[in-house]
Amino acid sequence: MPIVTLTTDFGTQDAYVGVMKGVILSIVPQATLVDLCHEVPPQSVRAGAFVLYQAVPYFPPDSVHLVVVDPGVGGQRRPMAVRTERGVFVAPDNGVLSLVLDSQPPLEIVELRNVNYHLQPASATFHGRDLFAPAAAYAAKGVPLSAMGPTIDSWVSLPPPAVETNPSGDIVAHVMHVDHFGNLILDVTADRIGYGVSFAAGRRRIARLSRTFSDVPSGHLVAYEGSTHGHIEIAVRDGNAADHVGLRVGDQVLIRRRR
Amino acid sequence: MPIVTLTTDFGTQDAYVGVMKGVILSIVPQATLVDLCHEVPPQSVRAGAFVLYQAVPYFPPDSVHLVVVDPGVGGQRRPMAVRTERGVFVAPDNGVLSLVLDSQPPLEIVELRNVNYHLQPASATFHGRDLFAPAAAYAAKGVPLSAMGPTIDSWVSLPPPAVETNPSGDIVAHVMHVDHFGNLILDVTADRIGYGVSFAAGRRRIARLSRTFSDVPSGHLVAYEGSTHGHIEIAVRDGNAADHVGLRVGDQVLIRRRR
Amino acid sequence: MPIVTLTTDFGTQDAYVGVMKGVILSIVPQATLVDLCHEVPPQSVRAGAFVLYQAVPYFPPDSVHLVVVDPGVGGQRRPMAVRTERGVFVAPDNGVLSLVLDSQPPLEIVELRNVNYHLQPASATFHGRDLFAPAAAYAAKGVPLSAMGPTIDSWVSLPPPAVETNPSGDIVAHVMHVDHFGNLILDVTADRIGYGVSFAAGRRRIARLSRTFSDVPSGHLVAYEGSTHGHIEIAVRDGNAADHVGLRVGDQVLIRRRR
Repeated sequence: MPIVTLTTDFGTQDAYVGVMKGVILSIVPQATLVDLCHEVPPQSVRAGAFVLYQAVPYFPPDSVHLVVVDPGVGGQRRPMAVRTERGVFVAPDNGVLSLVLDSQPPLEIVELRNVNYHLQPASATFHGRDLFAPAAAYAAKGVPLSAMGPTIDSWVSLPPPAVETNPSGDIVAHVMHVDHFGNLILDVTADRIGYGVSFAAGRRRIARLSRTFSDVPSGHLVAYEGSTHGHIEIAVRDGNAADHVGLRVGDQVLIRRRR
Repeated sequence: MPIVTLTTDFGTQDAYVGVMKGVILSIVPQATLVDLCHEVPPQSVRAGAFVLYQAVPYFPPDSVHLVVVDPGVGGQRRPMAVRTERGVFVAPDNGVLSLVLDSQPPLEIVELRNVNYHLQPASATFHGRDLFAPAAAYAAKGVPLSAMGPTIDSWVSLPPPAVETNPSGDIVAHVMHVDHFGNLILDVTADRIGYGVSFAAGRRRIARLSRTFSDVPSGHLVAYEGSTHGHIEIAVRDGNAADHVGLRVGDQVLIRRRR
Repeated sequence: MPIVTLTTDFGTQDAYVGVMKGVILSIVPQATLVDLCHEVPPQSVRAGAFVLYQAVPYFPPDSVHLVVVDPGVGGQRRPMAVRTERGVFVAPDNGVLSLVLDSQPPLEIVELRNVNYHLQPASATFHGRDLFAPAAAYAAKGVPLSAMGPTIDSWVSLPPPAVETNPSGDIVAHVMHVDHFGNLILDVTADRIGYGVSFAAGRRRIARLSRTFSDVPSGHLVAYEGSTHGHIEIAVRDGNAADHVGLRVGDQVLIRRRR
């Protein structure tokens, strides 16, 4: 039973996700479908990339990951399928696979040009249904990527987040993601900063790196090595850090090493 | 592995959808369950009908489609199951199957009266759990509809949207659905209007029918043949058309043929 | 195909739920995964308990129910697995299983201490992924609970809602849950109050107990025996009772017996 995961910015108020599942199950009825996230902010390629980055390591390496965050649908961006040691990825070539491919070098990339593996007639506005879902289903069924289109050897890569040091010697990190609990996930990992640090998040200070939010009293700010690839997170125990410190995706957090 | 799709106005904050899935899997453990949509606006039969209309063509023709948008539960409306060439549909007889049955003539309709196929004792307020989910499960398991109750030969049909022409010769279309992206889906199809047209949506004008939203610059309004059965859509590239033009479901859009 | 249900307060905007599913399917690929609810209000143990209470009776008794509402993660609360006649429950020992265990005495309880059944290295902040999802998967695969850790013989129990009588002889009930439709589910069951009663909900009066909301005209308040274990509900036909009467979870509703 092949696994096909789905990540989109389609939301859940329309039938769009269901339609893609119908297309997939029509091709590979025994597939196990898993929703990763359909609430990627509309057309936010970076947020979609982050969802995949969190989830892929926990799936079997023969899974197929279908990602449709596709502001350029119908335009020049290429539809593609990529094989790595962590599975097959089917997505528009717009950077949404960046974070995954940064850590998993592609073994094979094809452009999805073979119309025999498209739903026909393909629309100009819903490639999720007409190109990507069929490609994911055929890949799950065992069709080699090479049958679906010509090999390509480059792909759009978003610049990875840049962690820099300011003139005072502080590490300048950024909020990479704000989760459902209001936890701030930073673009820096614990192994990069070590334990003797303090944090400046907006106007608030956090005196140290803790192990988990249970280390501080209810209502207090806390920084700790989070569960996503070792990235540092900032939370409020039993509260919402994003509201508490007023930071959003892209905002700076300064990390100071103790002297 | 029979497919059972679920469409409701139950939202996702309660256990109601999960409960129906438990009922179905208790009867037919090997079913593949697919959520089409649970965010149909509460008790909006028309919106539920639209979700089905979008999704059904993309599912295998032996699928079972369970639809519970049921403002009249416990009252006089009949619970029914309908067989067409596109699958079995289990729903209250309140018009929610209208759009599907307009294009797929019913081959068989029964009223779900046989209490042996109900969960017992059946409540007066949750027929989704007690009547519809069991009927969908038994249908998926292969029980003939005729076992579930007496044949009926009429059903509630909502008047299909009326596309008219005003005294100036403009086609008067309406917003049929606003999707997650704010795209406006109209109640008129491309084959009805042809290509030499312009649009008046609220106070905004759109000069032509395009192929897809990538045909216009970011931030611009665009009209194109959408992915749903050829219905015309109005979008803002990289934006939200519903916010941009201030239109909602039911509002008019005028379509003018060039002279 | 073992069933594993998932109930969390993770929301659906992050990959967290998908990650747990990846972990489960990596261990037991043939599992049928069913989402009960991921919109439990953040860290609301009581609301999570209510979701389970609604759903469990409708699942096969060999199901595994995974529940992660876990404000104390990384602290002193124990991770546990419980076997009852209605299935296996995997959850933090914080009361989230209270309502289920009040009606289903535990046959076996273990603390999830055996690290061989953890994802390693386990984080201090995401036990849903690292402890609970693996335990649920191994239980679904047939591993006996006794292999996962030492037996324990107590658990955290939330005080069940207290239904009292005031000096005037009225039953003092409370709003236990407000559902997606705005229906108010009370902490008192129909068999406790009988039929000759009236209700005072906020400033509104309801003269009798009805059978279902179709018994009153559109827009009217109605009280009836609901579909959840016989609990009394208050609704507005075709409307939202929570908005209409201005009550929230925990607020009082007085029930007066006719004299």
